Amino acid sequence: MTHLHQGPVQPTPSAKSALRPVALDGVTFAADGFFGRWQHRNATGTLPHCVDQLGTSGALHNLRLVTGEATGEFRNMWFADSDVHKTLEAAAWLLASQPDDERLLAFVDSTAALLSKAQGDDGYLNSYYTAVKPELRWQEPHYSHEMYCAGHLIQAAVAAARAGVAAELVAVARRFADLMVDHFGKADSPMALDGHPGIETALVELYRVTGHRPYLDLARRMLDQRGHGLLNGERFGSSYLQDHVPVRQADEVAGHVVRQLYLLAGMVDVAVETGDDELFEAARRLWEDAFGSKTYITGAQGSRHRDEAFGDPYELPADRAYGETCAAIASVQWNWRMLLATGGSRYADEMERALYNAVAGSTSLDGTHFFYSNPLHLRTGHDGSHEDAPSQRLPWYSCACCPPNLARLVASLHGYTATTDDTGLQVHLYSAGAVRAEVDGVRIEVVTRTDYPWDGRVELTVTGSGPLDLSLRVPDWCSEPSLLVDGVPLDVTPDDGYLRLRRDWSAGVTVVLDLAMPVRVVTAHPRVDAVRGCVALARGPLVYCVEQADLPADVVLEDVRIDPAAAVVHTALPAVPVALTTEGALLPPGGDALYRTGVPENAATPLTLTAVPYFLWGNRSPGPMRVWIPTTTG
Amino acid sequence: MTHLHQGPVQPTPSAKSALRPVALDGVTFAADGFFGRWQHRNATGTLPHCVDQLGTSGALHNLRLVTGEATGEFRNMWFADSDVHKTLEAAAWLLASQPDDERLLAFVDSTAALLSKAQGDDGYLNSYYTAVKPELRWQEPHYSHEMYCAGHLIQAAVAAARAGVAAELVAVARRFADLMVDHFGKADSPMALDGHPGIETALVELYRVTGHRPYLDLARRMLDQRGHGLLNGERFGSSYLQDHVPVRQADEVAGHVVRQLYLLAGMVDVAVETGDDELFEAARRLWEDAFGSKTYITGAQGSRHRDEAFGDPYELPADRAYGETCAAIASVQWNWRMLLATGGSRYADEMERALYNAVAGSTSLDGTHFFYSNPLHLRTGHDGSHEDAPSQRLPWYSCACCPPNLARLVASLHGYTATTDDTGLQVHLYSAGAVRAEVDGVRIEVVTRTDYPWDGRVELTVTGSGPLDLSLRVPDWCSEPSLLVDGVPLDVTPDDGYLRLRRDWSAGVTVVLDLAMPVRVVTAHPRVDAVRGCVALARGPLVYCVEQADLPADVVLEDVRIDPAAAVVHTALPAVPVALTTEGALLPPGGDALYRTGVPENAATPLTLTAVPYFLWGNRSPGPMRVWIPTTTG
Repeated sequence: MTHLHQGPVQPTPSAKSALRPVALDGVTFAADGFFGRWQHRNATGTLPHCVDQLGTSGALHNLRLVTGEATGEFRNMWFADSDVHKTLEAAAWLLASQPDDERLLAFVDSTAALLSKAQGDDGYLNSYYTAVKPELRWQEPHYSHEMYCAGHLIQAAVAAARAGVAAELVAVARRFADLMVDHFGKADSPMALDGHPGIETALVELYRVTGHRPYLDLARRMLDQRGHGLLNGERFGSSYLQDHVPVRQADEVAGHVVRQLYLLAGMVDVAVETGDDELFEAARRLWEDAFGSKTYITGAQGSRHRDEAFGDPYELPADRAYGETCAAIASVQWNWRMLLATGGSRYADEMERALYNAVAGSTSLDGTHFFYSNPLHLRTGHDGSHEDAPSQRLPWYSCACCPPNLARLVASLHGYTATTDDTGLQVHLYSAGAVRAEVDGVRIEVVTRTDYPWDGRVELTVTGSGPLDLSLRVPDWCSEPSLLVDGVPLDVTPDDGYLRLRRDWSAGVTVVLDLAMPVRVVTAHPRVDAVRGCVALARGPLVYCVEQADLPADVVLEDVRIDPAAAVVHTALPAVPVALTTEGALLPPGGDALYRTGVPENAATPLTLTAVPYFLWGNRSPGPMRVWIPTTTG
Repeated sequence: MTHLHQGPVQPTPSAKSALRPVALDGVTFAADGFFGRWQHRNATGTLPHCVDQLGTSGALHNLRLVTGEATGEFRNMWFADSDVHKTLEAAAWLLASQPDDERLLAFVDSTAALLSKAQGDDGYLNSYYTAVKPELRWQEPHYSHEMYCAGHLIQAAVAAARAGVAAELVAVARRFADLMVDHFGKADSPMALDGHPGIETALVELYRVTGHRPYLDLARRMLDQRGHGLLNGERFGSSYLQDHVPVRQADEVAGHVVRQLYLLAGMVDVAVETGDDELFEAARRLWEDAFGSKTYITGAQGSRHRDEAFGDPYELPADRAYGETCAAIASVQWNWRMLLATGGSRYADEMERALYNAVAGSTSLDGTHFFYSNPLHLRTGHDGSHEDAPSQRLPWYSCACCPPNLARLVASLHGYTATTDDTGLQVHLYSAGAVRAEVDGVRIEVVTRTDYPWDGRVELTVTGSGPLDLSLRVPDWCSEPSLLVDGVPLDVTPDDGYLRLRRDWSAGVTVVLDLAMPVRVVTAHPRVDAVRGCVALARGPLVYCVEQADLPADVVLEDVRIDPAAAVVHTALPAVPVALTTEGALLPPGGDALYRTGVPENAATPLTLTAVPYFLWGNRSPGPMRVWIPTTTG
């Protein structure tokens, strides 16, 4: 079996990596499955919308200022080139599966040609520092995003190379990467730092595509130069710039979340390619910190709007959750790398949590409106006039990092679901579709039928050319998985989160994995002050929320209480296959006084509550929403 | 009786104002009373520290750049002139009571001379827009703070005029004010707006000092031009600039807190001087909103670090309270104006709450270290490396607005305690000392002995030249005031928060007001999600907190619970006249999992808790602190 196209993150044969991704065209999602529908919406909604916005937002205009094809002012953010690059990356991944899409090909080829024309003779490519601030090239790395943009250019080129399209784009990226190696890669070079990480993992991926070792060496150099306060932290502080502590010594995630997570992805990439255990251990320590006390139940990260930052341990306010969409995407990317490196199911658990909640919730049902921040509570009376905390999804943002980032993740999502190692195939994320891989000469095909995440029953038809292990992930939320193999119940205990079946698959086998999905009434660690006395409803990988749309108009959402002991019943709403109803109460506040002495007496009235999956919130009418519901008992 | 010196906020005789402040030298604080000690610390600690910092921070250097007495770079914030002006204002207030202080006089005279020299021939005075950006004078009002700085210059001059010092400073301010009237005051003038309000109230006060009506007219013009989106809100949005809604139409406080509150003070000043009921009603509406759902129990305001802003209704996170010191100061100033205009005790209640908690807590015991933000919870593991949320008070800030603002407020604090109207004298805030006033030809002197706020017993010796009303405020926290007049219990029901005694005082009377101060176990409005299941301890005007310093070192503060029904006992600690102890429990978190299904079982162990007044926190060792304590029952 020959796979033409690889997906994101491809450790080299010598990398210290427990697992290897199944090739991009080894995985297909069925059109009627959850991921299949998501990719379809991405291909027909989100990506064309992003392409359009590159025109209207000025991102292409800025490059044309450099080529002389346009005149006027530089428009929008100084790092808007990265919007172009991310959209190109998404298009390249998509072209791997639909290589005859003429419109996409035309976009990719014309944009690659524009980038090529905008590139300097020396390889430098950045519209802002060419058209607006040529004298400051490489001179304000705390601010410039030059390498950040370069990283996204390189990621686009890596995708193009793996998809076998846009050779010109690959050449452009290599010229720029070669310039950076030349400029920053020597012992006496200027410091190779950018206030916004992202370049590190891009250089490692480019090394993986090209085999050109200086890219990897430069990435490693960048990691080790960081954390010595060399960047100008006057305005935002050094943790915002990820320059506050040497990466090998860090023991807590801090500062700007997206920058921290992109940096961590780069740390893992460099660690596995260079066998650098110290570096990998640092990433693992930070993972414990991030997921032990600084992650929302939706997988979102970033407790603070100020500086778009991680908070203190257990500082997880629902209403002021920043939870940037790009951070959830970065979390998926980082966890995928941790999963590949170790094979540990906890990383797949966090990928799943982020994907089905924070990432999925960021996009509207039509794929063309987006949240930048993803709060877990929109208060009654919320002032939604600010772009950083709007009351509903917006078609675009002045800082438009998230939409094209979504496009590139979702376009390559099938690259994040299955892996192989020396002994077999591992399926980490379930969606209707098929996986085909080859391990040590043994071919295997797994065809999956499932309504996951609405139903925990996953039917797999497995055929292969011989014996190998098939490992099926049991998510951390599932305490009672059951397994039928050719109709016979099999008592298998999960091994580090995976049910491992070793057999000769040549006869073909039907495997039914049933991941029981009772509704879970979840509480948070008691140090999470923000949600004390509250519970959240969850079912399978989905976190639920209560929306004003399902309450009488005169009910103030903050007065609603839930009975955590009441039965929860499945129901269905338009576009919501599984909604939940349960019993609670309406508890009027007992007077207007903001502070009271003694407990006020309130007369509660019974109220039936409906909860919908968090990722679907805000698709009916804008209005208050909350994930964490105060209990009648708390 | 002739008073030489008036204090801040002096409505003219024609102003629509229920009350008039007692003159500054009509009120003295005894040296051993709470306010007397505070003013002493301010005079000997804070103010000299501010004067020193004007030198080291570069604020004076910037003015000397303009005069040619210095060379080099402009230093620090572009609005650092205001630090000079506020320090001058504080010095002027202090000189009213100690006119022979040679060091202060020398500072005021030399600085006034520097300002005079730095002033342009046309009256313009701003070091940044003279030395750095002369071509942009008045051209970037959303950013420049030119009028904000002018406002503080004028406030300094008003203080100087009322204290009878530094005539040169008054002349400088008038020249600048006249320039602004000339430039902005005509029908076809450019819009008279500054992104940071403050000028409005300054111009009204200058009108009050000079009787020059164009200053008042310009202030009114400024108010009415605001709120039409005329300022460039690209970066921060129009509510940050207080330009999002016409002031007369506003019905909720929003945006940058200090800007909103300074604007509100100006609205009240203009409203009372012009008899503009519509404008006053707008201020009253915003007061209801601010104090009904957007004020911390400490009187702090500002729920968001991002944009230093008010939050949504009931969005009052303890750990991320911004609660800027300047906002609490501005709240005192706004409430004082509301109190003068209406005579309503609720405004005095809020002054008291802010003064004894948010304002008092901002300064260290030695008067030379300050909080800029005033959180109600410093979490275990807090990253205190950022200036916007340090773990302890700092000697100065890159944006140094708060320390000199404290100096000017505290230096004039005796001007905020007592008033007169046509019928008598009102005492709003209690501290050991004396008040002397004259009402309709009747002189009255009230000598007060009290340990307030540590004790609610207030002994007043009243002598006068005839009959008038003496009104004594009963704070909202006191439900059982009692009164002895010449030893005889008097049953008086508070009238809108005041006990009103009418009698002929010529014989002299001893009045003992006993404001019973039982410890209060306070809860918040149930819509305040951030402190659900928590109580705060309060006694009299003081809010208490639990500090790590009073807990075993291995106890994590977030694991501490309080028994809200347990007896609370007074105790004393060094420098804490009344600390509180009560019973609670230590509740270990029951595992590390951040999210749990089902309620975890915890074994609580009894714990004795000590609470200290919030305003004293962080004076022993830096470390976790919290005002709102989770209950054993919640």
